[in-house]
Amino acid sequence: MINRQITLAVRPVGTPEPAHFRLVSSELAALAPGELLVRNLFLSVDPAQRGYVNEENNYVPPVPVGAVMRALAVGQVVESHHEGYRPGEYLYGWFGWQEYCIAPPAAVLRRVDPDQATLSQAAGVLGINGLTAAIALRNIGQPKAGETVLVTAGAGGVGSIVGQLAKAAGCRTVAVVGSEDKGRQCLSEFGYDHYIDYRHDLEAELAVTCAEGIDVFFDNVAGPVADRIVRRMKWFGRIIQCGTISIPRWLPVPQGPRIEREILTRRLRLEGFVIFDHLAQFDAVAAELAALLKAGRLQVREDIEQGLETAPQALADVFAGRNRGKKLVALVR
Amino acid sequence: MINRQITLAVRPVGTPEPAHFRLVSSELAALAPGELLVRNLFLSVDPAQRGYVNEENNYVPPVPVGAVMRALAVGQVVESHHEGYRPGEYLYGWFGWQEYCIAPPAAVLRRVDPDQATLSQAAGVLGINGLTAAIALRNIGQPKAGETVLVTAGAGGVGSIVGQLAKAAGCRTVAVVGSEDKGRQCLSEFGYDHYIDYRHDLEAELAVTCAEGIDVFFDNVAGPVADRIVRRMKWFGRIIQCGTISIPRWLPVPQGPRIEREILTRRLRLEGFVIFDHLAQFDAVAAELAALLKAGRLQVREDIEQGLETAPQALADVFAGRNRGKKLVALVR
Repeated sequence: MINRQITLAVRPVGTPEPAHFRLVSSELAALAPGELLVRNLFLSVDPAQRGYVNEENNYVPPVPVGAVMRALAVGQVVESHHEGYRPGEYLYGWFGWQEYCIAPPAAVLRRVDPDQATLSQAAGVLGINGLTAAIALRNIGQPKAGETVLVTAGAGGVGSIVGQLAKAAGCRTVAVVGSEDKGRQCLSEFGYDHYIDYRHDLEAELAVTCAEGIDVFFDNVAGPVADRIVRRMKWFGRIIQCGTISIPRWLPVPQGPRIEREILTRRLRLEGFVIFDHLAQFDAVAAELAALLKAGRLQVREDIEQGLETAPQALADVFAGRNRGKKLVALVR
Repeated sequence: MINRQITLAVRPVGTPEPAHFRLVSSELAALAPGELLVRNLFLSVDPAQRGYVNEENNYVPPVPVGAVMRALAVGQVVESHHEGYRPGEYLYGWFGWQEYCIAPPAAVLRRVDPDQATLSQAAGVLGINGLTAAIALRNIGQPKAGETVLVTAGAGGVGSIVGQLAKAAGCRTVAVVGSEDKGRQCLSEFGYDHYIDYRHDLEAELAVTCAEGIDVFFDNVAGPVADRIVRRMKWFGRIIQCGTISIPRWLPVPQGPRIEREILTRRLRLEGFVIFDHLAQFDAVAAELAALLKAGRLQVREDIEQGLETAPQALADVFAGRNRGKKLVALVR
């Protein structure tokens, strides 16, 4: 059987573009004992993938040039040489940007219950996006009713969930976004109390919207926008460093205003979050999110492209801020 | 009765020098109801005092020009118009750089038991220095046996205690200091396993001394030295931002390498610490430290100047790294 794959053709410096990838076709190998053959249905497109292809410090080694692009996906087991999995089951895991994946069991992050939510939702709100939002907000943010929670990339796959969960916890929620359109979406769909378009006078808008300061800053962007927000934190505020999408390159290390004095005098806590440290909680938290979804208390927006070949452009679009909600590539209609 | 005082004559930009202060004499006012007359015995000289005189964000408003220099001190009650205090008692509190202080009870941080330790120790190891070391290390550092704890300004009033407490907790301890002399003192007096003189090749020495990374970074200095250390943190490392002595001015905000990516990918926790948030623990933790002192399990080094007029130079010496241990000014022989 022929498998089509998106491989890394050239290692990018900074943000990956379609030219860094190649569409290849090859014969699928036979399954070894313990392996699964998974047919991918929805490919995940995530800002973290920039880190996977760059030569800079990260929590995983970079994707080798020539290898299939590392990506999460929801797929269905077609054939199993592992007693724990049977054909027909749906799985969420590291199946890559390809039509079929020969996966070891270690590639599986969780089993997908098709009655819990749609298969695309399993790759988004019940996948790393929603899980990140819920677990990072709870563990690091520790929001209390009445507090102000500000979320950068507030309309994104993670941010849109953070805003809703914080609101449900009784917080005032403020989204920072890169367009008026996304800002309006934040208010109408994701229930934010306010939004700030960072292209305007961020400083002045923060002074109005967060006049009494920010208790929890859920940061998906880093860089100059975050710099200004940190300076409006309340004493004992919590900052979740969840992403750094606004910084295209970390080599050489970019310069910015020092924050040690802010950290000290405001007694801030700044903590990094990587969802893969929390695998043991995935099923329980996904079930919580699924229950909210079923109850109509969680709005999700998906931005789905069709066809394997669209994946590289979809990723570039995410970095250009052109996605509206969780970006996915569908391999089924 | 005549009182001699050191007042702030000119607001410094950056590090205060003797020229920024003035020695003045004036008649002591009469005590109002509720007030205490305290005769100062040991004045504390602390890096935090730079922040008290500068016009930049801090956790307290700056000392007004013309006012007595804000400082902690150990003193003795001479006269009391407050039922809670009686003449002869020793107190530790915000009594300023002056011979006598007319203090409201709110200026008192803790009562000093002269049998617990010496009066100078009450202003150092049992004062904010030792309390900061113990509480910040415990609350934020959370050191576990076998971990590597690195301390900047490792021979200082706070750092020297941190090193010993971390060692007692079963950690490997590394001091970063600014002279070979202090480094040797760290090994011989404060029980550190290693020291690094940051004027040498810090990067190379870190690679040797902390080959497997750093679990807890107790940072008293910030700036370029800290930047390199952060990049050697282990995953899930804790950074205590306790001081920023290496950065003389925060206006305009100095630039440095961005750390968001380090925070995220290494899952670091960076947290600011101000000892005055922990007043409720002062007596209990001071008692723990006093017990260690009595048992000979805590070595303290004091660097004591004689006479009120030495205080401004003593403070400048701290910023120049010329102190050896906790800097104090004695008003008694």
